[in-house]
Amino acid sequence: MTRTIDLQPVPFDTPYQLRQSRLFTSLTAGDTDMLVLNPGPSLTYLTGLHFHLSERPVIAIFTPHHPVILILPELEAGKTESLPFDVSTFPYGENPEEWLAVFRQASLAAGMSGKQIGVEPDRLRFLELELLKSAAPEATFISAEEMIANFRMIKDASEIKAMHNAVKIAQDALTNALPQFKIGMTEHDFSAELTLQILRAGSDSEIPFSPIVSAGSNSANPHATPTKRPIQSGDLLVIDWGASYQGYISDMTRTFAIGEVESEFKKIAQIVLNANQAGREKVKPGLALEGIDQAAREVIQKAGYGEYFIHRTGHGIGMDTHEPPYVRAGNSMRIETGMTFTIEPGIYLPARGGVRIEDDILVTSNGAESLTNLPRTLETLT
Amino acid sequence: MTRTIDLQPVPFDTPYQLRQSRLFTSLTAGDTDMLVLNPGPSLTYLTGLHFHLSERPVIAIFTPHHPVILILPELEAGKTESLPFDVSTFPYGENPEEWLAVFRQASLAAGMSGKQIGVEPDRLRFLELELLKSAAPEATFISAEEMIANFRMIKDASEIKAMHNAVKIAQDALTNALPQFKIGMTEHDFSAELTLQILRAGSDSEIPFSPIVSAGSNSANPHATPTKRPIQSGDLLVIDWGASYQGYISDMTRTFAIGEVESEFKKIAQIVLNANQAGREKVKPGLALEGIDQAAREVIQKAGYGEYFIHRTGHGIGMDTHEPPYVRAGNSMRIETGMTFTIEPGIYLPARGGVRIEDDILVTSNGAESLTNLPRTLETLT
Repeated sequence: MTRTIDLQPVPFDTPYQLRQSRLFTSLTAGDTDMLVLNPGPSLTYLTGLHFHLSERPVIAIFTPHHPVILILPELEAGKTESLPFDVSTFPYGENPEEWLAVFRQASLAAGMSGKQIGVEPDRLRFLELELLKSAAPEATFISAEEMIANFRMIKDASEIKAMHNAVKIAQDALTNALPQFKIGMTEHDFSAELTLQILRAGSDSEIPFSPIVSAGSNSANPHATPTKRPIQSGDLLVIDWGASYQGYISDMTRTFAIGEVESEFKKIAQIVLNANQAGREKVKPGLALEGIDQAAREVIQKAGYGEYFIHRTGHGIGMDTHEPPYVRAGNSMRIETGMTFTIEPGIYLPARGGVRIEDDILVTSNGAESLTNLPRTLETLT
Repeated sequence: MTRTIDLQPVPFDTPYQLRQSRLFTSLTAGDTDMLVLNPGPSLTYLTGLHFHLSERPVIAIFTPHHPVILILPELEAGKTESLPFDVSTFPYGENPEEWLAVFRQASLAAGMSGKQIGVEPDRLRFLELELLKSAAPEATFISAEEMIANFRMIKDASEIKAMHNAVKIAQDALTNALPQFKIGMTEHDFSAELTLQILRAGSDSEIPFSPIVSAGSNSANPHATPTKRPIQSGDLLVIDWGASYQGYISDMTRTFAIGEVESEFKKIAQIVLNANQAGREKVKPGLALEGIDQAAREVIQKAGYGEYFIHRTGHGIGMDTHEPPYVRAGNSMRIETGMTFTIEPGIYLPARGGVRIEDDILVTSNGAESLTNLPRTLETLT
């Protein structure tokens, strides 16, 4: 076989250069002069770099026509070697008294003085903000939430592939964990078993969140923490879990009946299933996100349980477990192809039990593809 | 048996009232008028309440002679029932447009206007800060880092007991995981096994951090992430793990030799052990924290490996994995009885391998008690 040499120039070797180039186009066109990020998914999205958020500040400054400027501990400086784009690093040692001087050098290099600087409101902390303000006293700091959301909300093919993998890992994990379930196990112990299976099935070492395993009255709390209470016959069991694959997350919920459960529990399980389906059927590019919430909520309200559906219908999902777009009343944002979000209606009967069915949805050109496909009906565990 | 009725007034039923009372004394005496916290260990320390840091802002406002003011999602309002102190709650629904009005009401109730408001620099985000500033435009926001550290650095008996438990769980977990180790396992798979054992041994469901399991060249990176590379004969294996018990954390490191390792690896393991011991022996109330760093570093420097000990000697530990006090050059803060911190010298030979030995230390009236006591010598796994 003859190899042909492709002489087409490859403009970008990695997604990071393309993403930075798009960011710079957006910065050049808008009022925000530069973007300043601290550790988190947006920094990883734009650079491939992963830092823990810690007591040591790490900052990346993105400015058109400049190398990416990184302020970071010397200890982490090795991470910036062999990056596929230009960086200029400003490392500091173990004494926090060094921080301000290093921030000042970086600010000077980036030309921050007097500029409008976009930040992530739910990431950037007082710690970094005060250092940035002292280093660039004439600069103005504004929310770049919408700009960042506009980039990250629409997933590309490689991101969708990673999310498919994250879903497969989570589904395999539950499938492998369920045979270990026995009535009388504690919520905590089944959560531990599921955690092991998530890791064994191939999740990134840092799982996106500790599985919620909540039974009986605890299942009526959507944000429950697993307890040492044994799971008993007659309980509803809510399992809300996910995995991470190359930084992309899955987040799903299924509800089970433990032995024989009261008839109202079966009834609400069916109502929630209908609401989940109504929500999924409402997904269509061009319609408003609030319409999905409305469709799911209406099913529950019409069945007389409206007051027991106490949260929004869903949240965006990707590199963050919760990210834009939010599927809630009042969100008139339009659904777009390539968005990924959860649809997770629930009914919570206080002190008795709850049902939630949560799927991860990819918006396609003609509707919704549910990445998650384990059975949604109320299966019985004995 | 005759029961006697204790007519002594019990001033506080829980540690939270005492801690709040101390905070109010400190606020009354100082320049900071009130303290504003968002979710994290300090909020739990003062209230027993646990919230996840999420896209929905949660704020607690502590002012002398006022009930604790809580701004939180309606979804979380159930958590404030039956608290042992007075609270005044300001809940909001699922539409972020409601946030500012609720922040304004809370600011009015707390009398925030024109006040000096302390915040946690490494917790409070731009999100909450901007809402607080809009709600109380005349207020000034300043770092309460030192005030909070002064409360949390000195552990009481119940906190020390919880930390003892967290250490026991971590040590039991490694003891139970090691028999599952086989040469050829990946770092990732052994980390998964250790995670299961941490949870099985009784850790809180949310473990403080994903275990670092790093072998061969990866062990030369102090902040390594477990990879899919099989652990091989001749490797050094660094295991850095911890557990959580009632919100208190353990964090320890041991290093192993896989099969026969080169003689320099054995040599650096002995030097690090000597440095760890020198650091522990230097702990004494009244001396400066930097002295511990100096003592450990000197051992490594004198052995000719100073340039390969690339981080501080330790960090405080308690409800946070990293918290004050920091054991580093330049920290002249005095050691006090009841402080808890790590001592974790290391030598990292780039691209070859590393050794770290990390203990959790409690300062007693006459020196250091190491809560962690698994063998520190370089044991061989085969």
